[in-house]
Amino acid sequence: MIDPRVASGLRDLPPAAAIPRERMLAQFRAVFSSFGFVPIETPHIERMEVLTGKGAGSDEVLRQIFEVTNKGGTPGELALRFDLTVPLARFVAKHENELGFPFKRYAIGSVFRGERPAKGRFREFTQCDFDTIGSESPLADAETALVIDRALAGAGVAGFTIALNHRGILDGLLETLGLEGRGGPVLRALDRLAKVGRESVAAELSRNAGQGGAGLAPDQAARVLDFALQGRGGPEVLETAAQTLGSSKRALAGLENLRNILDLLGSAGVPTGRTSVDLGLARGLDYYTGVVFETTVAGWERFGSVASGGRYDDLASLFTTRRLPGVGASIGLDRLLALLEEAGRLIKAQVETPVLVGYFPGTRPTTPFQLAARLRAAGIGAEVYPEPISIGKQLAHGSTRGRLLGVIVGPDEEANETFNLRDLVSRHEDRGLAWSVLEDSVASALEAMRQGGAGA
Amino acid sequence: MIDPRVASGLRDLPPAAAIPRERMLAQFRAVFSSFGFVPIETPHIERMEVLTGKGAGSDEVLRQIFEVTNKGGTPGELALRFDLTVPLARFVAKHENELGFPFKRYAIGSVFRGERPAKGRFREFTQCDFDTIGSESPLADAETALVIDRALAGAGVAGFTIALNHRGILDGLLETLGLEGRGGPVLRALDRLAKVGRESVAAELSRNAGQGGAGLAPDQAARVLDFALQGRGGPEVLETAAQTLGSSKRALAGLENLRNILDLLGSAGVPTGRTSVDLGLARGLDYYTGVVFETTVAGWERFGSVASGGRYDDLASLFTTRRLPGVGASIGLDRLLALLEEAGRLIKAQVETPVLVGYFPGTRPTTPFQLAARLRAAGIGAEVYPEPISIGKQLAHGSTRGRLLGVIVGPDEEANETFNLRDLVSRHEDRGLAWSVLEDSVASALEAMRQGGAGA
Repeated sequence: MIDPRVASGLRDLPPAAAIPRERMLAQFRAVFSSFGFVPIETPHIERMEVLTGKGAGSDEVLRQIFEVTNKGGTPGELALRFDLTVPLARFVAKHENELGFPFKRYAIGSVFRGERPAKGRFREFTQCDFDTIGSESPLADAETALVIDRALAGAGVAGFTIALNHRGILDGLLETLGLEGRGGPVLRALDRLAKVGRESVAAELSRNAGQGGAGLAPDQAARVLDFALQGRGGPEVLETAAQTLGSSKRALAGLENLRNILDLLGSAGVPTGRTSVDLGLARGLDYYTGVVFETTVAGWERFGSVASGGRYDDLASLFTTRRLPGVGASIGLDRLLALLEEAGRLIKAQVETPVLVGYFPGTRPTTPFQLAARLRAAGIGAEVYPEPISIGKQLAHGSTRGRLLGVIVGPDEEANETFNLRDLVSRHEDRGLAWSVLEDSVASALEAMRQGGAGA
Repeated sequence: MIDPRVASGLRDLPPAAAIPRERMLAQFRAVFSSFGFVPIETPHIERMEVLTGKGAGSDEVLRQIFEVTNKGGTPGELALRFDLTVPLARFVAKHENELGFPFKRYAIGSVFRGERPAKGRFREFTQCDFDTIGSESPLADAETALVIDRALAGAGVAGFTIALNHRGILDGLLETLGLEGRGGPVLRALDRLAKVGRESVAAELSRNAGQGGAGLAPDQAARVLDFALQGRGGPEVLETAAQTLGSSKRALAGLENLRNILDLLGSAGVPTGRTSVDLGLARGLDYYTGVVFETTVAGWERFGSVASGGRYDDLASLFTTRRLPGVGASIGLDRLLALLEEAGRLIKAQVETPVLVGYFPGTRPTTPFQLAARLRAAGIGAEVYPEPISIGKQLAHGSTRGRLLGVIVGPDEEANETFNLRDLVSRHEDRGLAWSVLEDSVASALEAMRQGGAGA
């Protein structure tokens, strides 16, 4: 007998986890498509050289890479992808003459990292990315935030805020302080602000560059932290910042970009409180060059950002000389599912199959089989229990799986061409309904239950 | 510069391939769910021991396995799955006390085989499986065929036939010929009947077992071949066969099982011509023990079976002592897509985004952004071109991507709160429509185009 366990750091998703995940992904796909984003798929296996090219992944990610070999293959040649961004860059470079730009793609798929297994961290997880490549327009920036908004709202996430910042603003501040070129270490320090607090970040900013700090004087560190911590709120934050940053063109362009994005989001009906300017938002990736986004859910901040992204100057410089600026974001599917689960708002049963067709012993099996087929043809999912066990057990099986209604037949009903309709929640049963009204009566009963709140 | 090619035997799916694939998978998921099949997901990486256990895969498949290792991992411990059946068996054994039987699951995912690269054969491909575990009822058998029927019809496949046979029938024939226990080699020979013809199969049946044959006498081989070749058609085939096989209980039970399945399919409204008994149908896998299915499309037989499966006695004997009989099938997603592509019936554009909102230079970007958001809120997908290029280029971009309608605004329309509505197929344009009728007029125009056949 072989032990049926999964390998360390990996996991099975049983139906109670896979059903809400599929529903959420279908919802995301519909939102992406409604904006004209198109799907692409790339292989799970890439050439090692593609994944380990300079800047493709951080040193940490590269240490975690899974190598892949088959009999007759060359060791070290192939590996599993660790994100969907490097494959996107390779894909766009490979197909740059066919795609047409701006190219708006989404991709949903597994990525693999050999991290040390820990609670809630897995070696295979799903990424859910969308990007607009080949446009520098603020329309594309605003659309990225709008897609996040529509995707989260559609998934039933309440109370989220999309925080925005722009890389040029911090660069401009550093310019006014005579600190050009220190952006990288300053960003990395600020990125930990929410986690470790002001004092610890101030220390890191003041530490020497050789010791992993940013090498700022204490008063410079204080100015940077004041700017970051006070710059949170609505569009008014941009006006205050403009006065501080008056001299820096790059900063003013950043402020103008955020103003345009907020205007566009307002025109699309995104409520003002749904977005927030946060001049301390760092998103410590050097990769970003313009607007950056993070999204947190009120009361669930400990989950971190559930949707993040930003604008970058050049997607695929590893693979092509063509400059490809873009903007995109990644939705944290696993975090959102975990959050909704803890909030008790995850529907784990299959709403697509609301009906169990049950039958008493002595009924011809063709009868329930036929009634179920009729319901499905009318767009109503219906299951037949395959064995003639007791009707009580059939109904219990259905209830466990989230069925709302039982359509029940026995030899008498078969002879009279009738059925009984049982509400599996209230246990109310209507008897002797004619087969001719099967679809209509089931549809009405389901509609009534939906309005009454069951199965919502 | 790194070469952006994919590794040998792997492939990218650009939007024109990924869009119809996603649509087809969504369709399959909806069909599976309407019968109460639930999704599960298992990792792409399994423990090597799980994949190479006795009988898990054929020798050929095991030679093609991709091994997976990361820094610090033990070589030879992990591998990529080569199908979804072994992971299903492991999953069911691991979770046998939580699932509840009968357990109806579907799974859609990538599997990996290091085959020698060849046209149309890839080292990563998608499997699309559904199974009912823990039931021996003919209802579950018939439902398997019905799911194939509904899935293919829903995917727009015309002229397909689901062929059925039962393993017990051939076993019974061999019994009457005094050839018990020769089922394996006889099946393997018959499996090649369509490909190599009667004479070649007769030779293989007559060859000695030591030379890879079945060791039948020439007249026995002839009897087997007559039986296989003449036993094709409707339920009448079962009656003729019953006379030949009168003495074998196992054969009669097989015939009775097929009769029940045909009755059930008839009751569910499957047209008689959609199914066909084929007593020569072998499906050479030793794994199957009851009914077997194959599905071919008239005029496209060279694609082979596009949906196949059958009943098995015991799914997970490698992993658990619990006997788990079941029935299931696998839909050949890639074959179906290739077939529909060759038949010119694949929709490669994104029907979910029928509208392009275009704008003349001088229009405030918030205007098209807002109109597109209104259309999306009304359930109509709409794209805005992000840069203010010429309106002609915007419309061309939309047409290339399958948009059907252009909603066009300029500074005048903005001032008057109107828009122009352009049919991107006929190029007819209605001018000066009020913003207040935006959603209604776009919806009506799309409905008229759909009825007229555009975008169908």
